[in-house]
Amino acid sequence: MENTHNFIMPRTNLMGVGALKDLPTLLLSWKLKKALIVTDKNIISLGYAEMIETILKSLFISYDIFDGVLHPNPTVSFVQDGLSYFHKGINMLKRDYAFIISIGGGTNHDCAKAIAILATNGRAISDYEGYNKVTKPVLPQIAINTTAGSGSEVSSFTIIADESRKVKMTIGDPEITPFISVNDPMFMSTMPREVTASSGIDVVVHAIESYISTEASPITDHLALGALKLAFDYLDRAYNNGNDLEAREQMMYAAAMAGMAFNNAGLGLTHAMAHQLGGFYTGPHGVYNGVLLPYVIEFNCPSVPEDRMMKISETIGQKAGSKGEAMKKIHKAIRKLCTEIGIPEGLKQMGVAEGVLEELSQNALKDIITFTNPRQASREDIINMFKNAL
Amino acid sequence: MENTHNFIMPRTNLMGVGALKDLPTLLLSWKLKKALIVTDKNIISLGYAEMIETILKSLFISYDIFDGVLHPNPTVSFVQDGLSYFHKGINMLKRDYAFIISIGGGTNHDCAKAIAILATNGRAISDYEGYNKVTKPVLPQIAINTTAGSGSEVSSFTIIADESRKVKMTIGDPEITPFISVNDPMFMSTMPREVTASSGIDVVVHAIESYISTEASPITDHLALGALKLAFDYLDRAYNNGNDLEAREQMMYAAAMAGMAFNNAGLGLTHAMAHQLGGFYTGPHGVYNGVLLPYVIEFNCPSVPEDRMMKISETIGQKAGSKGEAMKKIHKAIRKLCTEIGIPEGLKQMGVAEGVLEELSQNALKDIITFTNPRQASREDIINMFKNAL
Ligand SMILES: [Fe+2]
Ligand SMILES: [Fe+2]
Repeated sequence: MENTHNFIMPRTNLMGVGALKDLPTLLLSWKLKKALIVTDKNIISLGYAEMIETILKSLFISYDIFDGVLHPNPTVSFVQDGLSYFHKGINMLKRDYAFIISIGGGTNHDCAKAIAILATNGRAISDYEGYNKVTKPVLPQIAINTTAGSGSEVSSFTIIADESRKVKMTIGDPEITPFISVNDPMFMSTMPREVTASSGIDVVVHAIESYISTEASPITDHLALGALKLAFDYLDRAYNNGNDLEAREQMMYAAAMAGMAFNNAGLGLTHAMAHQLGGFYTGPHGVYNGVLLPYVIEFNCPSVPEDRMMKISETIGQKAGSKGEAMKKIHKAIRKLCTEIGIPEGLKQMGVAEGVLEELSQNALKDIITFTNPRQASREDIINMFKNAL
Repeated sequence: MENTHNFIMPRTNLMGVGALKDLPTLLLSWKLKKALIVTDKNIISLGYAEMIETILKSLFISYDIFDGVLHPNPTVSFVQDGLSYFHKGINMLKRDYAFIISIGGGTNHDCAKAIAILATNGRAISDYEGYNKVTKPVLPQIAINTTAGSGSEVSSFTIIADESRKVKMTIGDPEITPFISVNDPMFMSTMPREVTASSGIDVVVHAIESYISTEASPITDHLALGALKLAFDYLDRAYNNGNDLEAREQMMYAAAMAGMAFNNAGLGLTHAMAHQLGGFYTGPHGVYNGVLLPYVIEFNCPSVPEDRMMKISETIGQKAGSKGEAMKKIHKAIRKLCTEIGIPEGLKQMGVAEGVLEELSQNALKDIITFTNPRQASREDIINMFKNAL
């Protein structure tokens, strides 16, 4: 009888060109003293961190900058580095940061979330793998987003790679939802082409996986379909001309909407499998997702209601007369979009070896993100999907 | 160049049958001591307040109940009554409430918002008429919603009638957005038919006004159209059989989605005019809105892009070949839905006299809610729309 679909997201989401302008007023009312900025050296060289520093200085909020996020695959060691920074501060005095500001893409937000958990809850980040393991309020986070993809700036998830075990851990807890997200397409116009492609195709995967999730609600459905349409309309434009601000803006909305959708509906097997590839290799999350998606949809198809398959097909501009036709058209349209934005056809081109697939499949089965996948998969099913995508 | 569309809503929205189940855990982490419950005698007799009391008792949170919301038109005097209650408490000791819980429909949430402002900011509620006039953090609010309509449980608006001036004041500030909203369709199944009708048609007006608003964004667009479709699919079912839980559930989602849409895109002239009728007479807000909507859309039509008119028409199941045809079909479909749910054809049937229309039009012009209406209206335009709707 009970049937709940809670909807969680940051209370305040500053969006659009010039979105930062409202941040000072918000910070002012919080009356906070000290911030830890979590970012990377590229963001600093682009001058984005400086824009935030200027705001903090004007409000007499002191801060330190941790720029130790070294590559786009958030790891336990980044989190530990950030945490020791958090505890000591650059001048070795104990620092009492009141909040965290993450500036960057999903990696930086994910690292900041993990630091925010450990700062107040202690123990190791692996202790929080799974859902709702956080017991104490975490440091409040403001996520200033510079890519259009991960949705991490609006989500209650962080994905951290455990290098020693070569697995990715999914940690989900409403408590780690940022309080404020900032999405300014201007910050996204400097994204390199490959990042536009990988984060953009991730949006498509978020939209489709949340739309066919077992936890989908009318709210997540409309956000997911809206995001899917925008991504199909604007991703190749943003890819081909990074300065096309309209395309950047629409992809920003697409990414945020898909983030709001998957944050509440959940994801599925594509992500579980991409996570494991990301734990083992170093390729971009979105690209693994994009390559895998058509094969995972094919596997899921028998468990997805006909009207949902038809709706996905229609949304990406491919009217279909039957579920089978919809499936074929969706497969083809995703492949076409991938080709247009330079995403390889198969995992082999990305250096994935057949020999590791059994182990990855075993780990994918354990990823909690599979909970909301519409069709139950065995290890063999997952191996087969990996092989189809090779 | 600057072009922002901030998106604000409660961080946590508990939704669906049994939604209350997650409230205790959330309250526990807040570690709050004392609550003021703002509600009305009907909600108490239905046993809804008691369900919240049980939760508070189990968490050792003390509380008082203010049940002085006496009719569905929130007034300055209710707010003042609530506030003196807030300051004195029933046993005349000074009470230090840490948060407010509103239980009921939009009226109760709106009253609670006004009390929450004055409790920490002082002065009179009329001092806050307009946008962003609140300077200090207000008491945190949890809105437990029992109707499917107002969207107040997810919004940063409160509409309070000033009886002395016979006008409705619109107060909008992100600060008064509730922290938690609870929407359980079970609570809505006891809504009387007339309330189902008036709050349900309000959802249609919220959806359409936010979709044609000058501040619409891709996020609000998809939420608005989703809400519009749900309302056209399920409102008459909820009206004809209050125990149709699927219809109640879908109308709950429709109301919340339309609330999320208008909270960020804004509303328009229909609401400005309905507010003034509500300040002068005592009819239900939603019914005024429903009667006025077709005439306001007709007025706005020249300023609404063709594709938006066609999209509205398509969403309510009326494909149209031209803007003019869309306009006619929308007008007809809204009238048809209104008739099905017992909403009168004209304002005369609701006791509105032609003689007051000039004054109401003057006041409607001043309502800040007109800021986002797509077409600038003169006083004469508004008088004409009122007359058409008589
Ligand atoms: Fe992803
Ligand atoms: Fe309304």
